[in-house]
Amino acid sequence: MGIGQVPVRESYSQSLRKLAATAVLQAMEDASVDRVEALFASNMLGDELQGQKHIAALIADEVGLRGIEALEIRAAMASGAAALRMAYLTVASGTADLAVAVGVEKMSEGVAAPILAKALDAEKEQADGATMVGRNAEIMRLYLEGYDVPEDGLANFSVNAHRNARNNRNAMFNDRRVSKRAVMKSRMIHAPIRLLDSSPICDGAAAVVLAASDEARAYTSFPVEILASSVATDRFRAMNRRDPLWLEAAHLSAHKAFRQANVNREDVGLFELHDAFSILAALSLEAVGFAEPGEGWRLGAENAIRLRGPIPISTMGGLKARGHPIGATALYQACEITLQLTERADKNQVPNAKIGLMQSFGGVATTVITHVLGT
Amino acid sequence: MGIGQVPVRESYSQSLRKLAATAVLQAMEDASVDRVEALFASNMLGDELQGQKHIAALIADEVGLRGIEALEIRAAMASGAAALRMAYLTVASGTADLAVAVGVEKMSEGVAAPILAKALDAEKEQADGATMVGRNAEIMRLYLEGYDVPEDGLANFSVNAHRNARNNRNAMFNDRRVSKRAVMKSRMIHAPIRLLDSSPICDGAAAVVLAASDEARAYTSFPVEILASSVATDRFRAMNRRDPLWLEAAHLSAHKAFRQANVNREDVGLFELHDAFSILAALSLEAVGFAEPGEGWRLGAENAIRLRGPIPISTMGGLKARGHPIGATALYQACEITLQLTERADKNQVPNAKIGLMQSFGGVATTVITHVLGT
Repeated sequence: MGIGQVPVRESYSQSLRKLAATAVLQAMEDASVDRVEALFASNMLGDELQGQKHIAALIADEVGLRGIEALEIRAAMASGAAALRMAYLTVASGTADLAVAVGVEKMSEGVAAPILAKALDAEKEQADGATMVGRNAEIMRLYLEGYDVPEDGLANFSVNAHRNARNNRNAMFNDRRVSKRAVMKSRMIHAPIRLLDSSPICDGAAAVVLAASDEARAYTSFPVEILASSVATDRFRAMNRRDPLWLEAAHLSAHKAFRQANVNREDVGLFELHDAFSILAALSLEAVGFAEPGEGWRLGAENAIRLRGPIPISTMGGLKARGHPIGATALYQACEITLQLTERADKNQVPNAKIGLMQSFGGVATTVITHVLGT
Repeated sequence: MGIGQVPVRESYSQSLRKLAATAVLQAMEDASVDRVEALFASNMLGDELQGQKHIAALIADEVGLRGIEALEIRAAMASGAAALRMAYLTVASGTADLAVAVGVEKMSEGVAAPILAKALDAEKEQADGATMVGRNAEIMRLYLEGYDVPEDGLANFSVNAHRNARNNRNAMFNDRRVSKRAVMKSRMIHAPIRLLDSSPICDGAAAVVLAASDEARAYTSFPVEILASSVATDRFRAMNRRDPLWLEAAHLSAHKAFRQANVNREDVGLFELHDAFSILAALSLEAVGFAEPGEGWRLGAENAIRLRGPIPISTMGGLKARGHPIGATALYQACEITLQLTERADKNQVPNAKIGLMQSFGGVATTVITHVLGT
């Protein structure tokens, strides 16, 4: 797997296509290939923020990959993982020998929140004023009240993410320390969600080049393999679910992936989860089985999620502190896990990690895509 | 292959999700299955016209397919073919036993043209006022002038499409006769493109259920097989191409598909091409090799494209007269070819058709997706 990451930043003057092309070229260079046969792109907001559809072909043209297959894959905020899955399927099925998945997002132009809200039901949620922050705030309130969690019970998810971002030059927030006190004093943006419980608006692009497993060793001495890829969906609206605090699609998708990869939860050396909001980190840990329902927050509070803890998460900053440039996010996760599994994560290296788990959510975990990576 | 088609109409009061769900349920009923494991959706304009992203999961929920994989696939106006390709790849690779591809578009709400223009380069085409109609008009003018084609040289493509639509109850224009004279007297919408050279704004949804070839016979006594699926891209901007009248991606993608299916052009019994504008029918026939460059219009003018001609096209009305509800179009094509290959096309039956070719264009043939279907 060749990887390419543009540093996540608050605002780029570079265009959407150039950010994406930079990530693709970097991934191709990392993989030592000068051509791929297929490109799968992910992007969520470009139709409206940049007035540009048809981006897969545009990126292929920008990179100079004449004639190749180029398609765009979407699943709201899980789009990057969806593109990775289609690149994986294309290579694994022998349809192409080499494929690249690239995600890109430029959220700094215009106002992203109302467009992000379109991942929710237009008729039955948006029409009532729901937004992504609002829906997650409802879920967080239910969690804090339902499980009698202390007000600062989730704050360590943010502290951990920011701590890990400091050693990641591609992270948006790699220049600051964030304490639990800082989290709890940060501005309330949509009660009970505070600014530091929430991932930032940002720009970025990331890419991975995939080759068939048996051929990857020709390209790199550190091959990382996708051991499993799976997608599951839940009832579209969280409030239609029997228990809105149980992320069934995350559960289904993870367990299907574990079976496919023939690994157990205990084998997971690190978990790049979808911590767009702190509450989602707790619920993910529960859905995948690292904690009982209502107990996920304790893994944060008790520091089990640190780099040398039993279940390291957000090891390069996560969505919270590396940043969450929507369409690109899962590709950053894939790059970061690759660095970890090949012992290239420098100061953030998780010791002896052989298996990396990554999970992406579209909507309020309506679509969940899980990948298991290994060496 | 189970098929489902909502009749293409000018305007539906039914919502986007209900149109899509109707097509999916009809295709599942046609295939005699009550569950699929994966759903691939295509739609181009819903983000902006209906304010709805994340439609694959929404459609899965609407149909009641709990827990399944659901992703959206895009390639501008070729999105439907892209969804079909991903469903095909998913089933062919054994990732799922049964998958459905569903396309849906509801263009009658709002103004579609400026959103369709987003398939063109935002910085270098849209910024200069280019639209899809405008770009195709330029190409048509180059064609008429460059090859010294009579002014009415392309009119028969429209006449043929409308003739075939009359016997298709799912076609938008199945209630009228259109003569060559009517085409040439129709309103000039963007010179030299007239109203009757252009596909209409409309609503629709279509779906196909796919099963692995060796299992399909358990579901139906008339199995149709996808013999090939291929995608190619060209320089993003038509005006960047050495010859804007040569559709290289259509050529590449068709010939790759012929090799994959192990068929020759002469084996093709019917060709559902991307006649969004009459000029594209001529250029497609040339790119695929049914005519020399500059000669494709003659196949129309000389009626070679009729149901009993050497190369029947748009046999159920094509994009021009069945209608072109963007994200759904290629799924209608797949349904129509299935009807032809299984001798269910009634009055429009092409005699002895064993191989059906379908092609979809994103942008001005920037992305071209070709499928070959056979029995």
